[in-house]
Amino acid sequence: MGSVKSFASDNWSGVSPEVMQALQKANAGHNQAYGELEDPFMIAAEKKFKEHFGPHIALFFVYNGTAANVLGVSHLMNSYHAIVAAHTAHLNEDECAAPEKFIGTKVLEIDTANGKITPDQVEPFLMSIGFQHHPQPRVISISQVTEMGTVYTPDEIKTLADYAHSKNMFLHLDGARIANAAVSLEVDFKTMITDTGVDVISFGGTKNGLMFGEAVVFLNKDLAIDFEYRRKQGMQLHSKMRFIASQFETYLTNDLWKNNATHSNNMAKLLESEIKTISKLELSQEVKANGVFVYMPKEIIEKVQEKYFFHIWNESPKGKDNYKEVRLMCSWDTSVEDINGFIDAVKIAIT
Amino acid sequence: MGSVKSFASDNWSGVSPEVMQALQKANAGHNQAYGELEDPFMIAAEKKFKEHFGPHIALFFVYNGTAANVLGVSHLMNSYHAIVAAHTAHLNEDECAAPEKFIGTKVLEIDTANGKITPDQVEPFLMSIGFQHHPQPRVISISQVTEMGTVYTPDEIKTLADYAHSKNMFLHLDGARIANAAVSLEVDFKTMITDTGVDVISFGGTKNGLMFGEAVVFLNKDLAIDFEYRRKQGMQLHSKMRFIASQFETYLTNDLWKNNATHSNNMAKLLESEIKTISKLELSQEVKANGVFVYMPKEIIEKVQEKYFFHIWNESPKGKDNYKEVRLMCSWDTSVEDINGFIDAVKIAIT
Amino acid sequence: MGSVKSFASDNWSGVSPEVMQALQKANAGHNQAYGELEDPFMIAAEKKFKEHFGPHIALFFVYNGTAANVLGVSHLMNSYHAIVAAHTAHLNEDECAAPEKFIGTKVLEIDTANGKITPDQVEPFLMSIGFQHHPQPRVISISQVTEMGTVYTPDEIKTLADYAHSKNMFLHLDGARIANAAVSLEVDFKTMITDTGVDVISFGGTKNGLMFGEAVVFLNKDLAIDFEYRRKQGMQLHSKMRFIASQFETYLTNDLWKNNATHSNNMAKLLESEIKTISKLELSQEVKANGVFVYMPKEIIEKVQEKYFFHIWNESPKGKDNYKEVRLMCSWDTSVEDINGFIDAVKIAIT
Amino acid sequence: MGSVKSFASDNWSGVSPEVMQALQKANAGHNQAYGELEDPFMIAAEKKFKEHFGPHIALFFVYNGTAANVLGVSHLMNSYHAIVAAHTAHLNEDECAAPEKFIGTKVLEIDTANGKITPDQVEPFLMSIGFQHHPQPRVISISQVTEMGTVYTPDEIKTLADYAHSKNMFLHLDGARIANAAVSLEVDFKTMITDTGVDVISFGGTKNGLMFGEAVVFLNKDLAIDFEYRRKQGMQLHSKMRFIASQFETYLTNDLWKNNATHSNNMAKLLESEIKTISKLELSQEVKANGVFVYMPKEIIEKVQEKYFFHIWNESPKGKDNYKEVRLMCSWDTSVEDINGFIDAVKIAIT
Repeated sequence: MGSVKSFASDNWSGVSPEVMQALQKANAGHNQAYGELEDPFMIAAEKKFKEHFGPHIALFFVYNGTAANVLGVSHLMNSYHAIVAAHTAHLNEDECAAPEKFIGTKVLEIDTANGKITPDQVEPFLMSIGFQHHPQPRVISISQVTEMGTVYTPDEIKTLADYAHSKNMFLHLDGARIANAAVSLEVDFKTMITDTGVDVISFGGTKNGLMFGEAVVFLNKDLAIDFEYRRKQGMQLHSKMRFIASQFETYLTNDLWKNNATHSNNMAKLLESEIKTISKLELSQEVKANGVFVYMPKEIIEKVQEKYFFHIWNESPKGKDNYKEVRLMCSWDTSVEDINGFIDAVKIAIT
Repeated sequence: MGSVKSFASDNWSGVSPEVMQALQKANAGHNQAYGELEDPFMIAAEKKFKEHFGPHIALFFVYNGTAANVLGVSHLMNSYHAIVAAHTAHLNEDECAAPEKFIGTKVLEIDTANGKITPDQVEPFLMSIGFQHHPQPRVISISQVTEMGTVYTPDEIKTLADYAHSKNMFLHLDGARIANAAVSLEVDFKTMITDTGVDVISFGGTKNGLMFGEAVVFLNKDLAIDFEYRRKQGMQLHSKMRFIASQFETYLTNDLWKNNATHSNNMAKLLESEIKTISKLELSQEVKANGVFVYMPKEIIEKVQEKYFFHIWNESPKGKDNYKEVRLMCSWDTSVEDINGFIDAVKIAIT
Repeated sequence: MGSVKSFASDNWSGVSPEVMQALQKANAGHNQAYGELEDPFMIAAEKKFKEHFGPHIALFFVYNGTAANVLGVSHLMNSYHAIVAAHTAHLNEDECAAPEKFIGTKVLEIDTANGKITPDQVEPFLMSIGFQHHPQPRVISISQVTEMGTVYTPDEIKTLADYAHSKNMFLHLDGARIANAAVSLEVDFKTMITDTGVDVISFGGTKNGLMFGEAVVFLNKDLAIDFEYRRKQGMQLHSKMRFIASQFETYLTNDLWKNNATHSNNMAKLLESEIKTISKLELSQEVKANGVFVYMPKEIIEKVQEKYFFHIWNESPKGKDNYKEVRLMCSWDTSVEDINGFIDAVKIAIT
Repeated sequence: MGSVKSFASDNWSGVSPEVMQALQKANAGHNQAYGELEDPFMIAAEKKFKEHFGPHIALFFVYNGTAANVLGVSHLMNSYHAIVAAHTAHLNEDECAAPEKFIGTKVLEIDTANGKITPDQVEPFLMSIGFQHHPQPRVISISQVTEMGTVYTPDEIKTLADYAHSKNMFLHLDGARIANAAVSLEVDFKTMITDTGVDVISFGGTKNGLMFGEAVVFLNKDLAIDFEYRRKQGMQLHSKMRFIASQFETYLTNDLWKNNATHSNNMAKLLESEIKTISKLELSQEVKANGVFVYMPKEIIEKVQEKYFFHIWNESPKGKDNYKEVRLMCSWDTSVEDINGFIDAVKIAIT
């Protein structure tokens, strides 16, 4: 660790130099705590978010994606409502039951092949509406990029948002890798989020060059009333808020978010093209952003992991008896040399 | 803001240069996420904590003091148990009901003049033991430094710990300003915490020169079993953990914690001595650490606040009709010039 | 136990014969479960409640007073809101932290001599409004009859309701002994509750001759939207609902509620008058309903308890060194002989 | 309703005459509230339970099955643990997310054809053990009778209990219809529950002739420590406890539980045999207790429901295009005439 890159996760990477500089610059003298409205760092960050998402948003910083997802969704529902999400959703699978603990309800799971859901998959759960023995579906939550590396088009998001609103529901979007999605789709955030009718998003940056912090952005600020109390009660109010705000202000300036995401997406594309040249490897998902999902022969995995660590995604994929499905994540700092080194390691392991 | 210092809170200050350097240094290449055991940054931080607290601890980083208090206490009790604490305790007064939300129970409040509690004040609550209509007292929580700027002696802590254990209870210590307490008492952490029998502490640094993060330290690691799941469920697991671990490692090296705390305590002492020279001001609490509590004439408050902001602690202190009680916090970066400037501002306002 | 009456609590008494007959009558053939709208027993019960409280109510049966209080209050607030109540309130003191667990928030306590609170005692808590570190006061909860046996006048209730509404808050009333209050005040429920502006009540009957069940009555049915889901999630939906509904229908027919409460109040008045003849006893509260609070010499308590059990309310009342404060509850089935027997027992114990 | 029986649910039936008599008998004079240990009704009920389950149990009454399941399971786990259960489990499907709300965790679902689960279906979830992002499986919950009308053999239960214990887990059994299971298996409760190693059960009676109340029975009383506080905090402590205790004491006396369950099981068997004579109906599950699951032609359902109401279980069973799966529940008071009437109604609807 330290010098050699891994493909384990985009959060094994470090912090962009621009962000380190912003932290250094923010560290001057005293500044009002807790990000109250007069805080110049909050004002600057909010200005940037409004440039990207439009003037009607409400912006709140929390510490991480778990909290952004749980608190954002929580603010749209009561404990007797239910969340509908893909089985693979981070909110469902990887939060150690934080949504159940903090919101006090159930995530209704949709099985998906590629991590994306559609209204017709949500529809069966609405049969519970009006039945007092079942929690009432209220929030649809999607991930963009999904946990399978796939990406919703703006049209697909709009279809889900319209459907949700037609059913008295809301649409939440987990944007842990939202920059990679925007780059992949070649759209701006406004087109992808504000114009499609999403209600609230988790806007992440830690996987794309930030140190800590995540933004909860309500696209309609009327939905955000009293959210400051929920954040505090959710143990997510940072005292020295300037050190979150300044990161995001920098991130949304001079296309830092876009440059970083473009780089990691390009590295994934390069990795994909190299993998296609190796007959014993097979892509298991379309490569749309910075994640590459691959069926890899069982016998080579440990050998390759010694040089470049990565995670097993599926120990026993159906119909692929001698394979495991592995996930290879590219980061803002992954280099062409890393890709080549990895491919070499695979080739050596195979022979 | 920016150049002029405030006395509002020690979290209005910035980050120690040593800590900024540590963050920069930690930002090299890739590193395992989530602070798993092989993470070299975690290993280094844990080594330092064991130097200060002994070899039997269990160490977990979370994001802030709210979480450290709530999750640490939570791990010692069930929801039908109760916490006993001073009315003024941060846990009770300033967490927007986070303990009630996350633990699901009640804080039984003790009225105190100086923020400190004693076993005989806890005793009456134990009449509830065995009475099924009342939550059962299980954790005593104290703050060191207290919210009133006072400090428990090691003997006082030991008395509370022994009492708690004799009643099948635990002792939690909120150490948001634990460094200032140690400096005030001229003792090390082991003497103050490990040797007195405290069960779990929140070890804070953000008020003394860190950027973010707080440590939950179980003095007996048997009490910490499964805490990693509670932390994750509590939305407090940081992905790029090296950026918390490296701060604390630096903080506990070369007496950074002690130097910073010594400075802020000294500044409070200087402020105290200057205040004593002004007949219209009156100290309302003993100055033991870096907080100075003062009765200030109502008519001068706004004038002084324009130059040096500080918070009103008590709008209408008993028997002090023309006064408010104000809190003046000194930081690791408060200077003699700041003190002098403040005293000048007071004198001008009075005349 | 069995033949000799106690003065311990009005829930040591049994079930009114009229109620036993109603249960027997309801036990014929099959009936729709869960009290759905077409259930004839629910329709009949609702009709009676509307006669007493007006046409705009929403009615839900739950199992007991704990649940009626917690769920009713819960429906008016979020977890980051706070409840304001008398320290002595059952909701605060005697629910083993059920409100904190289920609602996830704090009860802000008012010290009272007689169990009653006023707007000027609520007012100081409203300084927290807008301060993100404090839960936001949203519901005022009062008990009628109070836990000290005292009674709010309709004017006092209206003053609290108007105050609450002027502050964007709600008024909840714990009516575990609401029938005794109505009889004491010589008013009907509409005058006491609907016309004063109370938002939601717990309407109890178990202490006045019912077997089980309690009603949550929203005075404005718009506040009750989705309450059926909260009830089910709160584990309070009875399957064979007819056996709750039929009790309440009977209770509100032919003045059963009033006759029972009149009797127990009259017995308390008789007890009061007898106590006044004994110089070593002293009333500690006004006798307004069916509870009599008395300072009793310590040395006679156990002797009297052997014959007629009752609870100690305050082990060491201030300024009453040789006394304890005891609570004597009269029930719908307390007889003149019981009162006389008790008074005799006291007299014998004194001599 | 009232005279004609339905096959909707066994809780549409009324209360056994023996139980009504027990309630009447219990209604004499005063009795200690809350089922404290000296309460003669509790003592009598506990004696009966120990006759059936052995001397090492701990017994607690709550109001209903929702609470018995949620509180019983809750006492064996923390919020960061997970429950493993059949997808069809009442705990998972029909409690409006009460387990998620009260316990604060996730139910990990197993798809089953017949409502029964096996260790090899639990096994895959144990891959989460030690992974801090996932809640840790701690309790396996099964229903006996299952929600599909099927029954676990004692051997199958023992296999699950042994498996659970070998994995540091517990086995909970939802016995809403436990009497029907015992009758079906021709075993006593001790053989089915105590001897197989189940840790805690919900012992229901409301579906078999009781009015209200459910028992939580810990088979090992060491697991029950402090449960009285959890019950109270769970809003499930009844004041006039004698009216629950006396029902259960009667239920477990003179084989009332067995006689009622034998009758309803026999009626289900009769119904099954009649259904087999009708070629357009097809059984979808084995008939093991008092529930009969049938594929019924869509076009006749409403016609039959007009005469005998029942619930649709599956609107569109796979491979059965013109059918719905319906559930027909027999009760302790279902008569041969009811069965014949229903079969006649089906035959008329078909022609």
